[in-house]
Amino acid sequence: MGVSREGHWSLPGLRIINAEKSEFNEDQAACGKLCIRRCEFGPEEDQEWLTLCSEEFLTGHYWALFDGHGGPAAAILAANTLHSCLRRQLEAIGEGMVATQPPMHLSGRCVCPSDPQFVEEKGIRTEDLVIGALESAFQECDEVIGRELEAAGQVGGCTALVAVSLKGKLYVANAGDSRAILVRRDEVRPLSSEFTPESERQRIQQLAFVYPELLADEFTRLEFPRRLKGDDLGQKVLFRDHYMSGWSYKCVEKSDLKYPLIHGQGRQARLLGTLAVSRGLGDHQLRVLDTNIQLKPFLLSVPQVTVLDLNQLELQEEDVVVMATDGLWDVLSNEQVARLVRSFLPGNREDPHRFSELAQMLIHSTQGKDGSPTGEGQVSYDDVSVFVIPLYSQGQGSSGH
Amino acid sequence: MGVSREGHWSLPGLRIINAEKSEFNEDQAACGKLCIRRCEFGPEEDQEWLTLCSEEFLTGHYWALFDGHGGPAAAILAANTLHSCLRRQLEAIGEGMVATQPPMHLSGRCVCPSDPQFVEEKGIRTEDLVIGALESAFQECDEVIGRELEAAGQVGGCTALVAVSLKGKLYVANAGDSRAILVRRDEVRPLSSEFTPESERQRIQQLAFVYPELLADEFTRLEFPRRLKGDDLGQKVLFRDHYMSGWSYKCVEKSDLKYPLIHGQGRQARLLGTLAVSRGLGDHQLRVLDTNIQLKPFLLSVPQVTVLDLNQLELQEEDVVVMATDGLWDVLSNEQVARLVRSFLPGNREDPHRFSELAQMLIHSTQGKDGSPTGEGQVSYDDVSVFVIPLYSQGQGSSGH
Repeated sequence: MGVSREGHWSLPGLRIINAEKSEFNEDQAACGKLCIRRCEFGPEEDQEWLTLCSEEFLTGHYWALFDGHGGPAAAILAANTLHSCLRRQLEAIGEGMVATQPPMHLSGRCVCPSDPQFVEEKGIRTEDLVIGALESAFQECDEVIGRELEAAGQVGGCTALVAVSLKGKLYVANAGDSRAILVRRDEVRPLSSEFTPESERQRIQQLAFVYPELLADEFTRLEFPRRLKGDDLGQKVLFRDHYMSGWSYKCVEKSDLKYPLIHGQGRQARLLGTLAVSRGLGDHQLRVLDTNIQLKPFLLSVPQVTVLDLNQLELQEEDVVVMATDGLWDVLSNEQVARLVRSFLPGNREDPHRFSELAQMLIHSTQGKDGSPTGEGQVSYDDVSVFVIPLYSQGQGSSGH
Repeated sequence: MGVSREGHWSLPGLRIINAEKSEFNEDQAACGKLCIRRCEFGPEEDQEWLTLCSEEFLTGHYWALFDGHGGPAAAILAANTLHSCLRRQLEAIGEGMVATQPPMHLSGRCVCPSDPQFVEEKGIRTEDLVIGALESAFQECDEVIGRELEAAGQVGGCTALVAVSLKGKLYVANAGDSRAILVRRDEVRPLSSEFTPESERQRIQQLAFVYPELLADEFTRLEFPRRLKGDDLGQKVLFRDHYMSGWSYKCVEKSDLKYPLIHGQGRQARLLGTLAVSRGLGDHQLRVLDTNIQLKPFLLSVPQVTVLDLNQLELQEEDVVVMATDGLWDVLSNEQVARLVRSFLPGNREDPHRFSELAQMLIHSTQGKDGSPTGEGQVSYDDVSVFVIPLYSQGQGSSGH
């Protein structure tokens, strides 16, 4: 069955209410039960033959946020597709995933007697297979989005933040600038990091160094504190190239006056003057305005995956993971969100919908609405989507906004 | 003057005794006072004109370890050259380095009134200039080594670990598998990380993906738990490619049977079956045995730089930095070295040479010699070089073995 998807989720133990969306909201969300079927191999001499029987042998939970740009098409496709890609990837390694140690050969056949030792020495654990499956699923989904958008004559891209709970572990896979954090009574821990033109500067500059034709003589690969102008010619100014973490000075030449590959700081930083994120799905057709310069070669669809071992956490009833698109994190810090979580949950212990309401409250507190308890006065003008995932009662009270 | 170099250091406040070296020792060490001269600009209309007057306006200290391979030539050149490259790089940015905030223009001329604000927004600090100078110095030194070895018909390469104390900060720059750690009464903190074919797998595989010709059809880019053989053909085995942190399964094809780009685990891991490190200086001529396949394209000479703000540490008299080549770290963990430091120093407070003797003792404890207090029984068969840098009395008791 995999993850089914509706406006309001009615899968056992799961509820989702679509976030408050303005007319132009490009955020999309998906969540549901992830059911992985057994993938049986035929006799050894016919490795290609396999049966997908209907028996579910592993179930997990799946939450995903997609923040679209250039229209909602990619985000909608991702919300409809990524969980199927993931289920397929997990089913393809099903037998390996339930073993104590992943076998060298998926068939379980031992070609070399010391194979288990080689796998042991490499430190390959079951969770590495799930990480691999998430990485492959993101890439498969990106290819699907590319094909579908092209066929439909549509454009657009989206970020993707996915949480999967499976066999006592929570996997958080992120490609873009959404964020997930763990909030406990005494701890706030980021479970993802953001991928932006700034955070991936060296990777992006390195690519332009290797393939200068990607800049079509219109952009400069180098980073300067500001865009250079004629008056700077011949002077020694601060700069950074792909191999540098620090800064140095260089004598300004004419080619340095071109528009920079990465320009602007913080929220304003843009890749090729166009995009605020450096990882995500889609954007296969995206070009710099009025040019033929493509963005896609600089974008990665592969996520970074963090693993949280729930069994090692001694979970408390009010331990949650908060997943949200950048609209939330632009106006609230991790610590501020943690304070809101800790002040809200204890007073609402009897409310069966308290996690949904917490998500709703977090969204409200970014909108400058009445009853906003932050008092920060900051207002988000971006779309905001929030999931609050209760860890203690996995599968009983998961809810989202 | 820069750093002068002799067998026994006699610069004010510094002492170095050459490490115990076997006939085949390829380790080299250098340390000394780093004297940066003022670099004066001429009138604005003649930016190219500058005077190097003899006045020293900044002094620091410099410690460096070089672990050679393929002969000692590169390590010796590095020990004789790197400090001069660094001094030159620091002198070139001298005026920028003493300013509270690095100026956008090295001349100090303000082309755009909000230049300081742009620099501020980028978060560029004085220490970023020193990091940039270290990065450039390593690269310049690598070029010098390439030229000199070629001219002399010699070969070889080396790792480089450098510590520089300047204006209240300690900079640790590392390219290779040496290591520096901070040891305090209640804290052990790594100040560097190792660069090996394993730790830089994704970067190296990525390069082979972009430039497959570098492998000359002799190697496979993919990583497997062990080298594959004919029996594995057609089976699904564990593998990793450049974009993967996790593992997945692939159906083995004939090309997967080639020798792997990165092979072996831990101490045995090799790049192209040849080299155990992925960063360092030299190796311009190094080729895979009996082939024309070059190693150099996969090696980086740029170091990773860590900054320690000494003023924020509330330094105690027995706080030290231990720098050592891999020979030490192969047999002693950071914690074990910290225990040895903490048990040795308090009992030898009156000894003016106690830091030298501690370095000596650390080396002895890897050689299975009498009096080794580790009781670990592990013996290093590699060359071992150790610096113990006392942080409290910077420049008064620095010593090394």
